[in-house]
Amino acid sequence: MSNLRVRTDRIAADLTALSKITDPDRPWTRRAFSPCFDEGRNWLAARFAEAGLAVTTDAGGNLIGTRKGTESLGTIMLGSHSDTVPDGGRFDGVAGVIVALEVARSLAERGIELRHDLAVTDFLAEEVSVFGVSCIGSRAMAGVLPDSWMPLQHEGRSLDQAMRDVGGDPASMTARSDIRAFLELHIEQGPVLESSGTEIGLVTTIAGITRVEVILTGRPDHAGTTPMGHRADALVAASDLISAIDAEATARSEQGSHFTATVGEFSIEPGAANVVPGRVRMLIDARSEERAQMLAFLDWLEARTQSLPMGISAELTRLSDNFPTQMDGGLVDHLESASARVGASATRMVSGAGHDAAFMARIAPAAMVFVPCLGGRSHCPEEWAEATDIALGAEVLVETVIAVDQT
Amino acid sequence: MSNLRVRTDRIAADLTALSKITDPDRPWTRRAFSPCFDEGRNWLAARFAEAGLAVTTDAGGNLIGTRKGTESLGTIMLGSHSDTVPDGGRFDGVAGVIVALEVARSLAERGIELRHDLAVTDFLAEEVSVFGVSCIGSRAMAGVLPDSWMPLQHEGRSLDQAMRDVGGDPASMTARSDIRAFLELHIEQGPVLESSGTEIGLVTTIAGITRVEVILTGRPDHAGTTPMGHRADALVAASDLISAIDAEATARSEQGSHFTATVGEFSIEPGAANVVPGRVRMLIDARSEERAQMLAFLDWLEARTQSLPMGISAELTRLSDNFPTQMDGGLVDHLESASARVGASATRMVSGAGHDAAFMARIAPAAMVFVPCLGGRSHCPEEWAEATDIALGAEVLVETVIAVDQT
Repeated sequence: MSNLRVRTDRIAADLTALSKITDPDRPWTRRAFSPCFDEGRNWLAARFAEAGLAVTTDAGGNLIGTRKGTESLGTIMLGSHSDTVPDGGRFDGVAGVIVALEVARSLAERGIELRHDLAVTDFLAEEVSVFGVSCIGSRAMAGVLPDSWMPLQHEGRSLDQAMRDVGGDPASMTARSDIRAFLELHIEQGPVLESSGTEIGLVTTIAGITRVEVILTGRPDHAGTTPMGHRADALVAASDLISAIDAEATARSEQGSHFTATVGEFSIEPGAANVVPGRVRMLIDARSEERAQMLAFLDWLEARTQSLPMGISAELTRLSDNFPTQMDGGLVDHLESASARVGASATRMVSGAGHDAAFMARIAPAAMVFVPCLGGRSHCPEEWAEATDIALGAEVLVETVIAVDQT
Repeated sequence: MSNLRVRTDRIAADLTALSKITDPDRPWTRRAFSPCFDEGRNWLAARFAEAGLAVTTDAGGNLIGTRKGTESLGTIMLGSHSDTVPDGGRFDGVAGVIVALEVARSLAERGIELRHDLAVTDFLAEEVSVFGVSCIGSRAMAGVLPDSWMPLQHEGRSLDQAMRDVGGDPASMTARSDIRAFLELHIEQGPVLESSGTEIGLVTTIAGITRVEVILTGRPDHAGTTPMGHRADALVAASDLISAIDAEATARSEQGSHFTATVGEFSIEPGAANVVPGRVRMLIDARSEERAQMLAFLDWLEARTQSLPMGISAELTRLSDNFPTQMDGGLVDHLESASARVGASATRMVSGAGHDAAFMARIAPAAMVFVPCLGGRSHCPEEWAEATDIALGAEVLVETVIAVDQT
């Protein structure tokens, strides 16, 4: 680690400086479209400019610092996002923006000129925003931000207005076509790298996410007077279903490809101590790197909810259904070679979380680098990644950018 | 049924008249300490007086109509409660008060004089009241209403003041010692009589109720990035526990004595679609006619929550623990004989719900008569019992009162 060309101390200092731009009552909170977010962007724009980048905000509200290449071959873009969830952490997204900046600085300091343009991007509102939607900037850059979202309201302001307030111009958004490679560094947000002692994760696929709402309806009887055998207890039926979902997802994950299923929202009615639950609502979040696995799981779920105890009925609604996104094989190979050259241990893996890279993959070859984070924790104030680990990821990106620039 | 001496039409008319005294926006709602409740009591007091009863309100706020007996042998008391839950029904409690009144009217009309005093009682606030506590009047009559409840507040009024507002005098409450027999008619609130086609339920025991809060703590990981095998999912652990509780309670209920266990309150945290549940709170309501069964169940629960999946811990708190109450064997025999004399089919059974009779059993021989209700439903606007079924129960009570009076 001691002979890195990127500067660990500068990365650490930047992460600390940006972390201090937070809602003071709720560290670490810098939600998109808030005054804190604008302040963070002003700070970033100043750093971009110091690094010799030409700073602009595109139609989709993304902050971009660009350095011209020596030829007209298109753009190599690096980036992630500077917004956080409420009570979030100091690394999710931010690490990828600071690393992109550090790559630009490192290349400039070493006098390395690229044939391609180099762009450092802070995507707008990757996290679920106050408007209830996420990945606004990367969707816009990929030309897939729905027009129907523009009138969404928050505290009397439309999304359209909020995007214009950060310097965007929603009316003139179009898919960007000049990007030859997109690379994003991100903390893993999971335990795989840390627990296996691996320094670099090479993302091969961003899992598809399907969300299914299940309503189970039974009968809300008196808890004292209704004998056990006379009940249609929706909570007991839901419990059996959750156990089955957990077993099914575990079995699928053991077949070798990434698969998870989680019931993260769950409520019962009427919710009184002396009444047998008559209704349960649950939301299943299923994620798979293989569409076929997801379809098989959904078929299993459909069948499983047709064989419920007497008196219990189920209603299933697929609320969202996003396909897995393949990262570009050539870029992953470049990242793997670069890891080897800088002496970093690396493993190919699946991202179970969504990222801006999933939208960028629609318009360009895209790939991601994961770095370890403490206990796999994210979206919480305790989120932590070591600056040395982040710097090693930056070094891999520098190597990769130089290699890709030659192709 | 056609040769009953009680008058079915008069019972039906009284039930209808009293049901109309309801919060007009929420039929059927006549909560204790509300203006509707006072209006209902005024109506009842007028009917008591018409029936030749001397009307008083005791220190505990119970409305009592008394007819003197020919000897000084003490009192035979009949009664139940006229208050309802919010959005409740027209029969729970009310049927028992109207039947008690009808018994007094029927005896008077037929010129039958009793050796004992006869008292018709409308107990104060049997349902959970706006002060958060229940069975206020019957606890007071039994001398076990906690002094510590007197300062309880609702909308700026103390329970002490509210009891004085209905004519009570909490400062002078004492346990009543003159009652030789207490009899209460109530709708079953369960499906047993209806489903077996039985006309009369003879309550042998009012089940004990124990409530245990269980908190399961796991770890709130990211739902996408945390592999299935790395999780400590509190909801999955809770699901296994609920299935086990249901199976355990069902097995105990199949051993022949009344046993139920219900999880009626259940919530998870943080409750976000993309976060593995890290914490579950559940409230177990267990009811048993045998204390030994309850203790065995609690032992089982304690052991079961000590063998949870890795990373899951449990915290159990016994929030309340009430013993079962035996009805008086002699009175149950009297009720059974009376049922046979009036030609009503009858079965001995356990009450899974609590009643004023459980407190009256502390100071007097007590027993209960259940009559069927539609679909076992109660505490809801659809609650229904046929006037002919209620009248048959009244006839059984008339026969029983005459028989008990001779002993």
